[in-house]
Amino acid sequence: MFEFENERAELLEKIEDLLSRKRYAELRGLLIPLEAADIAVLCAGLDERVPLVFRLLPKEQAAEVFVELDSDEQELLIRSFSNTELKEVLDELYLDDTVDIVEEMPANVVKRILKHSDPEIRKSINEILKYPEDSAGSIMTTEFVDLKATMTVEDAFKRIRRTGPDKETINVCYVIDANRHLIGVLSIRTLLLAEEDDVIGDIMEQNFISVHTLDDQETTANALSKYDFLALPVVDTENRLVGIVTVDDAMDVLQEEATEDFEKMAAILPSDKPYLKTSVFETWKARTPWLLLLMLSATFTGIIMTHFENALMSCAILTSFIPMLSGTGGNSGTQASTAIIRALSLGEVHFSDTLRVLWKELRVSLMCGVCLAAANFVKMMLVDRWLLHNPSVTPMVALVVCSTLVGTVLCAKLVGCSLPILAEKLGFDPAVMASPFISTIVDALSLLIYFRFAISILGI
Amino acid sequence: MFEFENERAELLEKIEDLLSRKRYAELRGLLIPLEAADIAVLCAGLDERVPLVFRLLPKEQAAEVFVELDSDEQELLIRSFSNTELKEVLDELYLDDTVDIVEEMPANVVKRILKHSDPEIRKSINEILKYPEDSAGSIMTTEFVDLKATMTVEDAFKRIRRTGPDKETINVCYVIDANRHLIGVLSIRTLLLAEEDDVIGDIMEQNFISVHTLDDQETTANALSKYDFLALPVVDTENRLVGIVTVDDAMDVLQEEATEDFEKMAAILPSDKPYLKTSVFETWKARTPWLLLLMLSATFTGIIMTHFENALMSCAILTSFIPMLSGTGGNSGTQASTAIIRALSLGEVHFSDTLRVLWKELRVSLMCGVCLAAANFVKMMLVDRWLLHNPSVTPMVALVVCSTLVGTVLCAKLVGCSLPILAEKLGFDPAVMASPFISTIVDALSLLIYFRFAISILGI
Repeated sequence: MFEFENERAELLEKIEDLLSRKRYAELRGLLIPLEAADIAVLCAGLDERVPLVFRLLPKEQAAEVFVELDSDEQELLIRSFSNTELKEVLDELYLDDTVDIVEEMPANVVKRILKHSDPEIRKSINEILKYPEDSAGSIMTTEFVDLKATMTVEDAFKRIRRTGPDKETINVCYVIDANRHLIGVLSIRTLLLAEEDDVIGDIMEQNFISVHTLDDQETTANALSKYDFLALPVVDTENRLVGIVTVDDAMDVLQEEATEDFEKMAAILPSDKPYLKTSVFETWKARTPWLLLLMLSATFTGIIMTHFENALMSCAILTSFIPMLSGTGGNSGTQASTAIIRALSLGEVHFSDTLRVLWKELRVSLMCGVCLAAANFVKMMLVDRWLLHNPSVTPMVALVVCSTLVGTVLCAKLVGCSLPILAEKLGFDPAVMASPFISTIVDALSLLIYFRFAISILGI
Repeated sequence: MFEFENERAELLEKIEDLLSRKRYAELRGLLIPLEAADIAVLCAGLDERVPLVFRLLPKEQAAEVFVELDSDEQELLIRSFSNTELKEVLDELYLDDTVDIVEEMPANVVKRILKHSDPEIRKSINEILKYPEDSAGSIMTTEFVDLKATMTVEDAFKRIRRTGPDKETINVCYVIDANRHLIGVLSIRTLLLAEEDDVIGDIMEQNFISVHTLDDQETTANALSKYDFLALPVVDTENRLVGIVTVDDAMDVLQEEATEDFEKMAAILPSDKPYLKTSVFETWKARTPWLLLLMLSATFTGIIMTHFENALMSCAILTSFIPMLSGTGGNSGTQASTAIIRALSLGEVHFSDTLRVLWKELRVSLMCGVCLAAANFVKMMLVDRWLLHNPSVTPMVALVVCSTLVGTVLCAKLVGCSLPILAEKLGFDPAVMASPFISTIVDALSLLIYFRFAISILGI
């Protein structure tokens, strides 16, 4: 049953109790029915007792749990392992998981892992490590089922039964020629529904999608999601099959990329650690640079305000609407930029759509602006002038504020939608062009518009 | 090859050319090797010629393309179908896809679809439609492979071969008892690696995760992602197996939920249509309510400023730092709230972590605040006073601004991290407590802090 979240605290208590009373057989019985990912979550609360709990698990389950642990706990475990234990765990791991672990470990632990891996595996690990971070090559596994076009379905099943246990997935099989060129793809379903003497070359799918080792991992994951595949073959520059990316890894990539976009859009430098695992210093380091940059760039708004100091002094009520104007401008810009950034990352909008986007945002912003201006006019007359008895809120002042609103929303939406598209075109990540950055620009623009209207309408 | 994005425009041109020259056989040859999802993208550019292109495709591929089309184009097609054509397409569709389509169609089209579906399928459609939107029941399919515990592996394969072609997936099979209670789960891999005369009850996995029909679709998708499953069984209140949710649908749910969070965090009412498919009026309707609400709530900041008008008049330079202070406050709050909202939605942070989160944000905000204040002090002295020759920027004014910075960042981060957690605890979506909402609160707080410091330090 999927009730783990509710039972977590209770389970942890039970485990700690059994540990303190050294009731290991009972503890083992408690752990075995659990999913590996859940045991890993529980381990996070056990600190230095993790190796003890780990040794209670059957070999295969232990390896599954090991993969799910945080790198800190993995390191702790590896350091506590004897060489035989380390080898046992490594033998159970899938290649792509081993690579993930190796990437996170300090050099001396990596050395020890590589020393105790099979020579064959060691070679594969070193090869995958060579691919750039965030490339399809770096998230693929080399453990897939390959078939020959000349095999019969019966031969194929024999091969799957023989090599299957070590493969990451057998749900999709890949057909290669003598030079390891990928020539076809075949699902286990097709195999099962075929006759025993059918020839693979006749029943395989020859129209297939593949990615290149250097393709971006996000593109790869998006392709898996778009085409509803369980795995995607990865080929090198000569179209030779070198690995596959499976759907579970693609899901992780999509979640990571979404988190990264959230962080960038909130002016945080992205990190790949969970919130509570990041130290105060790391969090500070990720947040300060953008805050600093945005704070200093607000100097421009300061200069604009100083420049119009006399206008402000002669009509002091104008000052009190500045936070509302800059807030509304910022929010309008954020709406447009967020909509466009997400559409770009989902592949719904491309550079060629720029004019359509601008034309749409122009109409939306005019409608929003007029609507806000009308509401604000009513509010200023009813609340500020009539209810709060503020005689300096004249209809002319309201006109200045409302005209500024329309202008600000217009600017904010046009800047908000065009900057991310421009960033993508120039090869930057559009998410960086997100709300805080745009708010700063819109702030300055809205002040300029405000003072222009104030000077021409109020004649100050 | 995965080069579709680059070839899209070229392909579309070729298709239009072939259509205008009525070279249908050639066009068919061009389309057949393409993936269904890609053909659907191309169809979006063909408008009223979609039915013509659609009829060129082989039956099975046509159905796959149909599923991938937007609901507008699906409706256009259904209206152009003869009853026989409609029945042919419906027969090829998987049940969950049919349900998705039915959910989007106007009543008269739904009636026609249901009339031409098999009575068996019609019953299933009506049942799934009964589940609330966003529940596991609403995204599941009832087309799965079920086995009995007493079957041998050989029996199981016979059953899979017989019923498999109509099932959404055969990669995972479900073992039920006489009352349809779910008692075990079995992957096709286990079946393939077992002996022919092994009994299903002996080799099936009895520790499995299942979800309830009324569980949230996001929880379901997160579980699939967390446990790396290809499908998750869905049971009713009496633990009877009623359907499965497959990984491709889970991926779509995760992407949709992320988009929804992005929208909510940017103060947009969520919609499930792609950006360019949403009309100007719909976009306006989704954006105006929050803008209006946030604009009106900025009245409070206005009132605060009017209240301290005298203080501002006696030291006009203070006004020019307001945009910078409110910007920095907003950005700091956004950083904390975004980090927490994402951590909550990934299940990394729970309500029980509130104190840990507050303690962490307290330390981070003090470090950020002091750092920003120091930089700002240097900037005010060097740039504003010395470089721009502004004599009113005295060290005392700088002290007021910098103390306010520390206080604002502190408030912003504490408000930013606690409101989303509180919202989640109260059963609201934490994403609504995002940047724009928090900026408005922080704006008011930062002004109050600013004027307090100004009055006590400058004695105005």
